[in-house]
Amino acid sequence: MRNINEDTITQAVLASITNCKDERFRQVMTSLVQHLHSFAREINLTEDEWFKGIQFLTATGHITDDVRQEFILLSDVLGLSTLVTAQNNIKPEGCTEATVFGPFFVEDAPTYPLGADMANGAGGEPCFVQGKITDPQGIALAGVSMDVWQSDEDGHYDVQLPRTESGHHEHRARGRFISDAHGGYHFRSILAQPYPIPHDGPVGKMLEALGRHPWRPAHLHFMLVAHGFERLITHVFRDQDRYLDSDAVFGVRSTLIADWVRHEAGTAPDGSLVDRPFYTLDYDFVLNPVKASAQP
Amino acid sequence: MRNINEDTITQAVLASITNCKDERFRQVMTSLVQHLHSFAREINLTEDEWFKGIQFLTATGHITDDVRQEFILLSDVLGLSTLVTAQNNIKPEGCTEATVFGPFFVEDAPTYPLGADMANGAGGEPCFVQGKITDPQGIALAGVSMDVWQSDEDGHYDVQLPRTESGHHEHRARGRFISDAHGGYHFRSILAQPYPIPHDGPVGKMLEALGRHPWRPAHLHFMLVAHGFERLITHVFRDQDRYLDSDAVFGVRSTLIADWVRHEAGTAPDGSLVDRPFYTLDYDFVLNPVKASAQP
Repeated sequence: MRNINEDTITQAVLASITNCKDERFRQVMTSLVQHLHSFAREINLTEDEWFKGIQFLTATGHITDDVRQEFILLSDVLGLSTLVTAQNNIKPEGCTEATVFGPFFVEDAPTYPLGADMANGAGGEPCFVQGKITDPQGIALAGVSMDVWQSDEDGHYDVQLPRTESGHHEHRARGRFISDAHGGYHFRSILAQPYPIPHDGPVGKMLEALGRHPWRPAHLHFMLVAHGFERLITHVFRDQDRYLDSDAVFGVRSTLIADWVRHEAGTAPDGSLVDRPFYTLDYDFVLNPVKASAQP
Repeated sequence: MRNINEDTITQAVLASITNCKDERFRQVMTSLVQHLHSFAREINLTEDEWFKGIQFLTATGHITDDVRQEFILLSDVLGLSTLVTAQNNIKPEGCTEATVFGPFFVEDAPTYPLGADMANGAGGEPCFVQGKITDPQGIALAGVSMDVWQSDEDGHYDVQLPRTESGHHEHRARGRFISDAHGGYHFRSILAQPYPIPHDGPVGKMLEALGRHPWRPAHLHFMLVAHGFERLITHVFRDQDRYLDSDAVFGVRSTLIADWVRHEAGTAPDGSLVDRPFYTLDYDFVLNPVKASAQP
């Protein structure tokens, strides 16, 4: 393994991993090395460009911390997240479609009783969300765990806001609900707004250099987990949003766009009196049974 | 740009960068996106694998600091560095070949007078290095700036050792020399030894999972800069080293292997008396005139 040149290097790297005991890992790395090398050859990557790439990855790593995930953002804007989501979530007709996870999920969001206001101080017009969770035959699914997260009226998720004195982030516009005996769910939150993905870091600079905007259409994030069903990670988008056709992360699906209805001040769906205009959103979810996609 | 699936995502991303004003950057990113997506499709990357990749890059970013460069290490062990070096350094016969830069170069190494001992306290058997720097016609090149860096007898570069109380690293086994009027250079240092690349981080774990060892054959790093000539970044390797045929970073070239001669205690090349065995290394460098490769 001496005198390796630009033509023989790929075979040399592949020869070095023949002892890998994890067959799947060897396959993944074989493909990765082949495509990485093909990329560098195809565009005749220069040493300066290589070093700029090293600096970009370093900056991306350094801005990433426990609440900011610039690598997921990078994957999102390069379409890798949508590709991986799509090819792993091919569901039968009628099941709710999946979309990208995004960088703002938090593991330990509080569980609220149905009907609670998960805004917890986040600013925005009131929004009442409700719907039903079923299997593809319309059978109600009780006890489904539903994580919901969204940005506030300024386009910020709670983890993007300053930390409290104890060094933590308060959970705002984020929570978990459990569907009732009839598969129903309902909660109060705030109206989702379009927002730019964090663009003060390396990914933002890259987007600017590419002539792309950083905006996403308004949406709510959902993650539904139920025993015997595929985990569903998805969004519900606001209709009429100006960014539905140019989402910076390529996540929009027509079936995930819903009508968010505006109401004047008055009685909300939960019977409470609201002294300002508010919105309502009805959206039903259909979960895919595990391995259903492999059945006839 | 809605309802993008695993087949249409690539075209959607490419369509989003048509406004990029930097034509070269657009080309690079077009190729990168195509290969990144082809990789994910070819091996049908799962969501769990995608997330492990995100975690790997995050850990690689977090262990990288002002003196540890895990992304360069990653590029090195995946053969990307050798590929980029090779395709950018095709030189006429007779010119000294280039090899990988590695992660241990430091910008502000001290300039020493010829003959000085650059070890500066680094442990190892004495080694006296000398040679001549010429152009391809054998014309001596005076005033060439030559950075040299190497690991100590324990396989550590100075930047891998604990910092001083002031938070800096002492420059050890590292320095810059300037060739004399006859193109000659000579200095004292220590004997280079084989060493494992840093393998206590993400790249080390990856190598282990791939069934690869982290060792490099013993070598000295050189960077030569002379007006009117291509910058030369290379190594000189020790002959007989057990890792010459399995260098973890694929950097060995036959023309860069030299005879490091062992001598019993006695008079060194510089006339000094050495009270222990020492080594000598003679190596001449031939620099490539700028754009010579483009001339007939």
